[in-house]
Amino acid sequence: MIGEIIAIGDELTSGRVLNTTSYFAASQLFAAGHEILAMITIGDEPELIGRTLQRALQRADFVIVTGGLGPTTDDLTNAAVSSALARPATFHPEIFKKIQVYSKNLPTTQQSSLEKLAWLPAGAHALNTEAKMAGYFLVQDGKPIFFLPGVPQEMKDLLLETVLTRLAVWEGEEVRQVRQKTYKVVGLAESEINGKLAHLEGRDSRVRLGYYPVFPEVHVSLTVTGASSLEAEAVFTEYDGQVTTLLGDCCYGFGAETLEGVVGRLLAERGQTVAVAESCTGGLIAHSLTRISGSSAYFQGGVVAYSNALKERLLGVNREIILRCGAVSAETAQAMAEGMRRVAGVDYALSVTGIAGPAGGTEDKPVGTIYFALASPDKTRVFLFHFSGERGQVQALASQTALDLLRCHLMGLDNECRTV
Amino acid sequence: MIGEIIAIGDELTSGRVLNTTSYFAASQLFAAGHEILAMITIGDEPELIGRTLQRALQRADFVIVTGGLGPTTDDLTNAAVSSALARPATFHPEIFKKIQVYSKNLPTTQQSSLEKLAWLPAGAHALNTEAKMAGYFLVQDGKPIFFLPGVPQEMKDLLLETVLTRLAVWEGEEVRQVRQKTYKVVGLAESEINGKLAHLEGRDSRVRLGYYPVFPEVHVSLTVTGASSLEAEAVFTEYDGQVTTLLGDCCYGFGAETLEGVVGRLLAERGQTVAVAESCTGGLIAHSLTRISGSSAYFQGGVVAYSNALKERLLGVNREIILRCGAVSAETAQAMAEGMRRVAGVDYALSVTGIAGPAGGTEDKPVGTIYFALASPDKTRVFLFHFSGERGQVQALASQTALDLLRCHLMGLDNECRTV
Repeated sequence: MIGEIIAIGDELTSGRVLNTTSYFAASQLFAAGHEILAMITIGDEPELIGRTLQRALQRADFVIVTGGLGPTTDDLTNAAVSSALARPATFHPEIFKKIQVYSKNLPTTQQSSLEKLAWLPAGAHALNTEAKMAGYFLVQDGKPIFFLPGVPQEMKDLLLETVLTRLAVWEGEEVRQVRQKTYKVVGLAESEINGKLAHLEGRDSRVRLGYYPVFPEVHVSLTVTGASSLEAEAVFTEYDGQVTTLLGDCCYGFGAETLEGVVGRLLAERGQTVAVAESCTGGLIAHSLTRISGSSAYFQGGVVAYSNALKERLLGVNREIILRCGAVSAETAQAMAEGMRRVAGVDYALSVTGIAGPAGGTEDKPVGTIYFALASPDKTRVFLFHFSGERGQVQALASQTALDLLRCHLMGLDNECRTV
Repeated sequence: MIGEIIAIGDELTSGRVLNTTSYFAASQLFAAGHEILAMITIGDEPELIGRTLQRALQRADFVIVTGGLGPTTDDLTNAAVSSALARPATFHPEIFKKIQVYSKNLPTTQQSSLEKLAWLPAGAHALNTEAKMAGYFLVQDGKPIFFLPGVPQEMKDLLLETVLTRLAVWEGEEVRQVRQKTYKVVGLAESEINGKLAHLEGRDSRVRLGYYPVFPEVHVSLTVTGASSLEAEAVFTEYDGQVTTLLGDCCYGFGAETLEGVVGRLLAERGQTVAVAESCTGGLIAHSLTRISGSSAYFQGGVVAYSNALKERLLGVNREIILRCGAVSAETAQAMAEGMRRVAGVDYALSVTGIAGPAGGTEDKPVGTIYFALASPDKTRVFLFHFSGERGQVQALASQTALDLLRCHLMGLDNECRTV
């Protein structure tokens, strides 16, 4: 279906608040197979709200309106809708009863203003049956309009819990069901992934593949619709299997998983520990690992050996090696990882040394030259990568690559995925 | 003036990319005294682009269009504008000449596609006189329309460098001049800053103050317009002085400056060095410092002492201290900083130990309790802060605070700004 998203709020048009709800709605609706014609942001102006809604109804199959539903006087969406669609405000006693239940601990002054939430345009149905959040829908000219709160979390919850399902039901004559999955890929460019999966596209109108570069990763989304959940599930299972096989070990996880989370889970499952010795990434790998609450179970810590002196003093790297081979070399990377593993007493130590740029490149070792080493109980493996991009991009690519080298090793994928 | 912002790109309506450029434009235009009627996002569809532009011209005084100006075949904005406004595509040899100069190092295939950038709707004038970025403006029905690149940084640069000034010139009968400055503040909430500056607002219609929380900082913008540059300059100088005094030492810099950049500059000017010993921030402080190219001149490195064992082994923290006072304590913070300073042989060492959450809090030391220490040639100073927020927010606040403690010390502001 073709939809339009209208976000309402003076805080948006004055640039005080970044509108993330329209973006979230667009991404979810797109993944569910819908097309968004326009995303419109306007202020709390009843007349403009009314006209914008009317125009959206002329050109779209459904409309999503966010914001302006609250109990305060600057929330004008309901009044604008009542006027524009000739649906007088109507008191909904069942909604008011529920509001009274969950607001009974609030001060009386706040309770009275909440009564406004029970006055909705005629024909409106609350989206949340608990009435804990504002939000309703109504049908105009055979087209559904969803009114959602501007509060991002409430809006997202209602969209996922009710809007997507109702829209799936709306589609065509029959009830349509949706299955969706996101594959997270590291170490392959969008075009490479596209090359692997391109032959799956266009074969079946119920199937949609999307490619989303989320630097330094690429996320692939598979969306399948079917007339029944049985049909959707059958087609989904077939395509999920093919996408999984084609992406292979470069797909580190799905949905909300992160690379540092997957690495952490693999270590925790094995009861193993890791430490990191970083030069050009400057602490980014350690910071990524400690984004995960509970990472202290497997992450011991690390050294940011930015200067050669610290490489020697904290990691025991032999000065001879640095002088002979250079700070950016396979030998130094190996000595850093082995020194880190020794001093921290961990199962695995990762090291990174390279040239993040923009300065410091040479003809032999241009900007983007990065050596990695992974010291493990059996041996130390060394890897050489060349990245391009700005300083921050090279650092992010190097950090992600280091974590992925550990992931591949933990999964027994050495020499299969991403060796030099 | 009343404006409308149109963002163009399939990557926006499919929810693949979050539109931050419209938000940035709205905040800057609002700060400069304009009102935004609507922010509209549509896909790369020529017919819809044309209709949206025509409607915007009917109701707004000026229009800003972003995206779809690039050299590839899916960039359709120029063709849509040519058609909608009956302005045939015209070759601009002076733009082409400049494109040739800065693209001379690119592969020939890329050079030829860049020729498209010199074909603009009749009446268009390039915004960037170097032609290094796409972007032009034209006047339709007496109203200026600005076409800017969708690339956020290029769009922001052109908006600040050319659009705001041209719009100021447009305003009223007379030529108006604009002076603008952004103050970057750390350690104060938006409401606290507002409290300090509120009495400056509304006194002079030529002056506008804006507050932009950019977590974990707040940016304050001062915009002054005047009939002449002399007038604008005079009013600006007066207000700039007052804002600077009122913000005091909590303003670490201006414009494009970053806190890690300011700290780096202060250290480099003094020929001094720093190292960091991090626990709960997990490498974020070190990573912030190494975002700056050339930071190796003053940043020696650091230790991410996540486990107590590494605090002992790498930083020489006495086990007794950890057992007696806890890993999160003033004593441990002090021992970490002093150990780091000793082992790295640096002028300053910063340490952080605390509870980032969501787990690990106690009644005595709830989540958000963070101890900092700054070891310097004369003595070691210890600080205690309590932050609230999610894990990532606490880590970001702690990292920013650590850098700011060093900044204050380097500027001789101990005991004045942000002590416990």
